[in-house]
Amino acid sequence: MADTADDLLARARSGDRGALARLLSLVERGGPEGRAVGALTHPLGGAGYSVGITGAPGAGKSTLTNALVGQVRADEVPVAVLAIDPSSPFSGGAILGDRVRMADHTHDTGVYIRSMATRGHLGGLSLATREAIRALDATGWPWILVETVGVGQVEVEVATAADTTVVVVNPGWGDAVQANKAGLLEIADVFVINKADRPGLAETQRDLERMLDLTKVDGWRPPVVATTAPTGEGVDALWEAIRSHRAHQESAGTLQQRRSDRASEELVQILAVLLRERAVAEAGDRLAELAAEVESRALDPWTAAERLLDG
Amino acid sequence: MADTADDLLARARSGDRGALARLLSLVERGGPEGRAVGALTHPLGGAGYSVGITGAPGAGKSTLTNALVGQVRADEVPVAVLAIDPSSPFSGGAILGDRVRMADHTHDTGVYIRSMATRGHLGGLSLATREAIRALDATGWPWILVETVGVGQVEVEVATAADTTVVVVNPGWGDAVQANKAGLLEIADVFVINKADRPGLAETQRDLERMLDLTKVDGWRPPVVATTAPTGEGVDALWEAIRSHRAHQESAGTLQQRRSDRASEELVQILAVLLRERAVAEAGDRLAELAAEVESRALDPWTAAERLLDG
Repeated sequence: MADTADDLLARARSGDRGALARLLSLVERGGPEGRAVGALTHPLGGAGYSVGITGAPGAGKSTLTNALVGQVRADEVPVAVLAIDPSSPFSGGAILGDRVRMADHTHDTGVYIRSMATRGHLGGLSLATREAIRALDATGWPWILVETVGVGQVEVEVATAADTTVVVVNPGWGDAVQANKAGLLEIADVFVINKADRPGLAETQRDLERMLDLTKVDGWRPPVVATTAPTGEGVDALWEAIRSHRAHQESAGTLQQRRSDRASEELVQILAVLLRERAVAEAGDRLAELAAEVESRALDPWTAAERLLDG
Repeated sequence: MADTADDLLARARSGDRGALARLLSLVERGGPEGRAVGALTHPLGGAGYSVGITGAPGAGKSTLTNALVGQVRADEVPVAVLAIDPSSPFSGGAILGDRVRMADHTHDTGVYIRSMATRGHLGGLSLATREAIRALDATGWPWILVETVGVGQVEVEVATAADTTVVVVNPGWGDAVQANKAGLLEIADVFVINKADRPGLAETQRDLERMLDLTKVDGWRPPVVATTAPTGEGVDALWEAIRSHRAHQESAGTLQQRRSDRASEELVQILAVLLRERAVAEAGDRLAELAAEVESRALDPWTAAERLLDG
């Protein structure tokens, strides 16, 4: 007999990690079953607090997340980690690296770590991440860390789906400028300069602070924290900065606003996914016919799409 | 009297760069006018060949693109560059850096350089890039280089919307591994190790070649080229690798297949955009009502989206 999402959720809520893993696999696969999980977990959430951790590949996010988990555990607070591996557009596969590096915490029942890959249809990654955060929230995890791999448009969406967004850069000429170019300056609630033992720390700190001087600050100026993840240096200050941002948002009422904005945004994304599925299902063979006409340049793609739309 | 897209296209085709700039601005802004450009340029294209250049922020893509433009011009072939700045989700602004660095070529009428930003609704960036490539193709540019800023899911889509995809990494421990993690290994037709004068070149070459050994090669094994963009070292080999990939695709018939796959994919993307617009327009006030119910957890988002969908 197959376990229903209902069963799995009940067992996950009473601490069954295997059931939680299977619940998250349903979310990862998406489709009607994944959606059923969303419908079940949504009413139960709200107490958990999520932290997105983003930055360029190689910035040391995994090692930093690992160190941050240790710091959170020093307070004896449970913590879950979602490591989001964007699927390659071809293989759809997750890579095991992050899981391996997180091995420090495998015997700690107050830590739950999960790598997640999602096949790359538009909206898939950020929707699945939101569902997974919701599932962890509904099963009682008070802190949920979400680590992204890249720094593209979708990864920024993923990182900003959290309550606090941490942006990780490295010392060295131009890294702050690159972060700005990639649109990271405006999404950061906390900046981390990781690998702080490398040359160029002071310059990068100065660059970031100058850029922040030029940015409109609305009640919260993102602190800039220097860390050396492998030794744990500065990780206590990072944890402190995250908790300060949470306290600020809770007292200023902006947490409520941020979550409310996210709810509308998510609704529109889901609507687009459902519409797309419906359209592709209805279009059927006509899609292939019209694509051939587009390719032979008999028809431009916008006109072809309108024809599909109007049946 | 406002110029129509028709007028602008005719003038751009006879070499009026101001008209081309305005045509691309229509594409950038999107909406009905941008779509009108797509309908006009689509039947005229097909002769131009596009090259996507992607890699992590800071890999030196802009400097490399600049050097590659010089190399292409040494053959007296005209070349256009699209520098895609993903808008930050907040400001929507493009940053001038790339344009400034391209100043070497401002007096060469065989070079056209354009930075493009698009507001970040899903699908917007890759659709607008395709339209812009088409506009450049239809106005007679035989080579079109497309430089992305990041390495996320959307940027990978942008880079793979080109006929040849160049992936740029740097020497140093782990950079090849990071490229693999970000899904770049499978999209690369040509690998560049830029900043080849830095330590670690041999290791990165070896790492990439080993990863390529493990990858299924279907008639074309991506060459690995070392470049030092500021001095121009290796840029001739990069240009040679790009032309070899083109020749391979043309003789193997895979170029046709690649373009055909892209046509279907684009059609589905456009369909999703049109459906989303229609749905948001029809939903109107009901969207805000249902979002409020989702936020108060009276309704889960999937059920809310289905209610919107079914009116």
